[in-house]
This record gives sequence, structure tokens and C-alpha cells, in this order.
Amino acid sequence: MRTNTNIVVRYQETDRMGIVHHSVYPIYYEQARTDYIKQIGFRYSDFEKMGLYTPLYDMYSKFMKSITYEDEIRVETRIDKLTPARIVFAYDVYNKDNELINSGYTSHAFVGKDIRPVNCKKDFPDIYEKMNKIYLEDQGEKRG
Amino acid sequence: MRTNTNIVVRYQETDRMGIVHHSVYPIYYEQARTDYIKQIGFRYSDFEKMGLYTPLYDMYSKFMKSITYEDEIRVETRIDKLTPARIVFAYDVYNKDNELINSGYTSHAFVGKDIRPVNCKKDFPDIYEKMNKIYLEDQGEKRG
Amino acid sequence: MRTNTNIVVRYQETDRMGIVHHSVYPIYYEQARTDYIKQIGFRYSDFEKMGLYTPLYDMYSKFMKSITYEDEIRVETRIDKLTPARIVFAYDVYNKDNELINSGYTSHAFVGKDIRPVNCKKDFPDIYEKMNKIYLEDQGEKRG
Amino acid sequence: MRTNTNIVVRYQETDRMGIVHHSVYPIYYEQARTDYIKQIGFRYSDFEKMGLYTPLYDMYSKFMKSITYEDEIRVETRIDKLTPARIVFAYDVYNKDNELINSGYTSHAFVGKDIRPVNCKKDFPDIYEKMNKIYLEDQGEKRG
Repeated sequence: MRTNTNIVVRYQETDRMGIVHHSVYPIYYEQARTDYIKQIGFRYSDFEKMGLYTPLYDMYSKFMKSITYEDEIRVETRIDKLTPARIVFAYDVYNKDNELINSGYTSHAFVGKDIRPVNCKKDFPDIYEKMNKIYLEDQGEKRG
Repeated sequence: MRTNTNIVVRYQETDRMGIVHHSVYPIYYEQARTDYIKQIGFRYSDFEKMGLYTPLYDMYSKFMKSITYEDEIRVETRIDKLTPARIVFAYDVYNKDNELINSGYTSHAFVGKDIRPVNCKKDFPDIYEKMNKIYLEDQGEKRG
Repeated sequence: MRTNTNIVVRYQETDRMGIVHHSVYPIYYEQARTDYIKQIGFRYSDFEKMGLYTPLYDMYSKFMKSITYEDEIRVETRIDKLTPARIVFAYDVYNKDNELINSGYTSHAFVGKDIRPVNCKKDFPDIYEKMNKIYLEDQGEKRG
Repeated sequence: MRTNTNIVVRYQETDRMGIVHHSVYPIYYEQARTDYIKQIGFRYSDFEKMGLYTPLYDMYSKFMKSITYEDEIRVETRIDKLTPARIVFAYDVYNKDNELINSGYTSHAFVGKDIRPVNCKKDFPDIYEKMNKIYLEDQGEKRG
């Protein structure tokens, strides 16, 4: 399963090189991740209300082509890895001509409000099962 | 009393017009405000630990000259108004040649963690008296 | 004429008070302004290609209610003033319950790539006439 | 050779989890990179005036501990790799207690204003030789 998030580049997101500053891509990823979670039937803001937080463990971003103000981009999002302790989202960003302009991932720890690790499978079974089902189907498709 | 905060413009703060984006000035003001509070003997992060928050009521910013990456600027900060319910900070931003490039203010409500109004004079007398003393001295100087 | 721009608040736009940071509103205004210009038949990025830039002269923002991550907001945009040298846009921001949560304006100078003032009416008559027609109609409605 | 850049966390850089948002670290890296270049006798803004630009090829960031508003951090910067086509900077971020809280790198292509690749060694020999001298010394120390 992959979700698509359409974004129009904001002026403020550009820098004096005339292109979108690299620090903005993690923000695009975040907007896309919010969408992904919404499309599988949850709201990330509800996760936090329930006491589930997902701070980053690490992130990576690779830049192939630049984009600028008013460009229409599409972020394709998928779960790349899931364990009871951690989730990795992967992103591909395309421009209007459907060229891949950026790829990246963000890996997140499952923690409580106190930033202590939680076992997502045990502590938030509904959320985990739903995400795991999608993840396993995705893996099956890859293999199959 | 006026405090001075020196800032070097970051690349990310510029936009494709080649200058610092206007949305960055409130962030410069905020850094300068943090400095002001430190120089009168407090830490704004301690205010929050004690339960005193200061969300904005309104803000204004006027742009005279542009600045860009690696420019060295100086923000001059003062208390423009103080009541038990509200505080207004005013800012003048200067470039390296000491030209005034931007002026503005931010007005803040005194509230608790629940965003309900508090009476700063009653509930945080130490903080209020210190700021009020400075404010009254400043007003005296203006008049005198 | 008023245009509506729908925005979903990004996580990165919040601060540790739990609400959208005040410096983000000028960015919302900018996205709304881009939309306004698109809906009257132009693209702001084309203005820049033609050599017309609109840096800010000043801006103001008033905060009535706070918003946070995943909140759906609507920015209502209109031209508040227009002369051959300057344009003022005004914005009202509403939450999902249609409550006014923020109001503001940004005033812009018409300049060339060298940041020297241009006469928009003379130098960019098509753009100016279109915007002036809307502006005069808006003023007529107000009076009438 | 490693340079140290001291930064005080800004309020705006935090998010509603109460910590610095992950998208801010590339901005800290950038400020540290600017410092590095200054300390070896150049100014990055002069590079751009001479026609040398360094857009990102990729970046990576790993988060060990969180930081928040008013925290004083130190970014340690070094050249991790240098070729006539590309430069990689590496960063270690420490908190006040000298704990490593974040590590990362940014790799940059050498390009001209038109974003076409340039040979830094040939086209900007002064810059290249200076950086290469430091890089080779660093590599020698590692081996030695």
C-alpha cells in the first residue's frame, strides 16, 4: 500500500539558491506520513491523545532534482519496516512530470509521553495489527 | 533598558528573492526576547516551569531594508508596555552599518498552562516587580 | 472578491506550547495569497519571471484562538488596498467550527528584480487592471 | 580539524512533543558548516559570489537524545570526504553535559550558478587546495 500526498511548494520553503531548501523535505515527509495514517483509518493526533508518540530514530534524504515555488509535487509513502518497537516510513517525491526528485526514509521509535519505549503490539494492539497487516501484504507483494 | 542580541543570518532563512523571508523576523524577535529576559536575571524556560506562559496577542513588523545570508544583525529590545495582564516588547533590527532595517513589536498575554489568563502581578510577583521596575525607569527616561 | 484556502496544520508548525507558532501565520498568508493570484488568472511565479517582485513593506497579525496539529483551517483573502506602487492583502483565518482565529494583513511594494520601485500600472498594465477591477468592485460592495 | 559552533535552541524550533523538531538539525548543520568555512579563511557567501554553489546530494541524521528551548548545544564539524566533484561534511551535536545527542552528514555537489557540475580543483583551485590540505591532514591523523 502506497498513499499519495499532493503538495504545492510555498515561497518560504525556497532559499536564495532559488530552490526548496533541503530541510523542508522532512516536513513534506511528515505531511505525507500524516496522510498515510489517515488513509488507514487513524489520526496521528489521536495516537498522541492515547499516549503513543513516535520521535525519530534516524532519517535519510537523497536529492535528485530541485524544485521551486508553486511546483506541484507528489509524495508516495509506504511502511518500509515494522516491529513492536519501531516503524520505518519510506518516501518517494515526484514532480509534475512524474520524475523522481527525492527519496528518503524516517525511522521512528514507539514511545510514551515520558519518551520511554513502549511495545506497540502489546500496548496499542489495534493500531499495530492494522499497520502490520498492511506491512505484511506489502512484503508479500514484493516477494510474490 | 535595552538589550542587544547579535545574530548571523542562516542560509535557510533566505528565500528565492535572495533576502531573509519576512516570517523569520518574529523568530529573531523571539531570540532577542529570550536574551532580554536572561539579562534581567530570569530564564523564559523557567517561567514555563513555574506555569507562566506568554502566547501572542498580536504582532507587527515593518521592513526598511533587506538582509541576506551571513549578514550580521543586531536586535535591540525593550519593554514597550506592561500591565498585570499583558506585556509588549518592541524591537529594532540594525545591520552591520548600524542602519535600522526593521522595527516591530509583539504583545503577549500572561496565561497559565491551560491558556487561561493570569494576573502576573499577583501570581508571579517577583517576575512582575522586576519587569515593572525596568519598565517604569524606561518610561521615566522617556519623559525626563 | 474573497478566496478561500484550506490548510491542514503540519506537526512542524507547532511549538512546545502545543499550538501553531505565531511565525507560521505569515506563511499561511503567503500560501493564501498565491491562491488568490491563481484564482484571478495569474501565477505569482510568472510575475517574478516577468520581473515583478512584491517584497513586504509591513505586516500585522492578531491572534484570537490557537490551533494545533491536524487542525483544518481556512484562510479568506482579499485585496485591502491597491495603488500603482503598493498592494495590501488582508486575511481572516477560520477554524473548522468557522470561528475567526486570526486576522492580519501584509502590505507589499511593487519592485523590479533590482528591488527598485516600479509603477505597476504603467509597467505591468494587464496585471494591474485585473487587480484594480476586483479592488474597485470590492470597494463598491463595501460602500453599497 | 574540527570546528565548534555554539547554538542556543530557539522556541520556534521546538514542536508540540516539547523537543526540537528533527527538521531543524539540518539547519544547525548548515550554521556549523558556515562557521567551518569561515574558520578556514573563507566565507561561503563569497563562494556564491564567485559562482560556486554546493547543493545537497544527500543527508543523514541520527537522533540519540532530545533537546529543547534554551538548551545550549555545540556542533562539532569536520570534512569527511573531498573530491573535485563533491564534499561531505560530518557533524556531532553535543548538549551542555557533553553528551552526544545527534550525529549526521551532508554531502554536497560542486556546481555553478546554472546547477551544472564544476570541477572544484580546476575551477576554484585556492578553495580546493585549502580544503584538501585540511582533509588530507585529518585523514593522516586518523591513520596515524
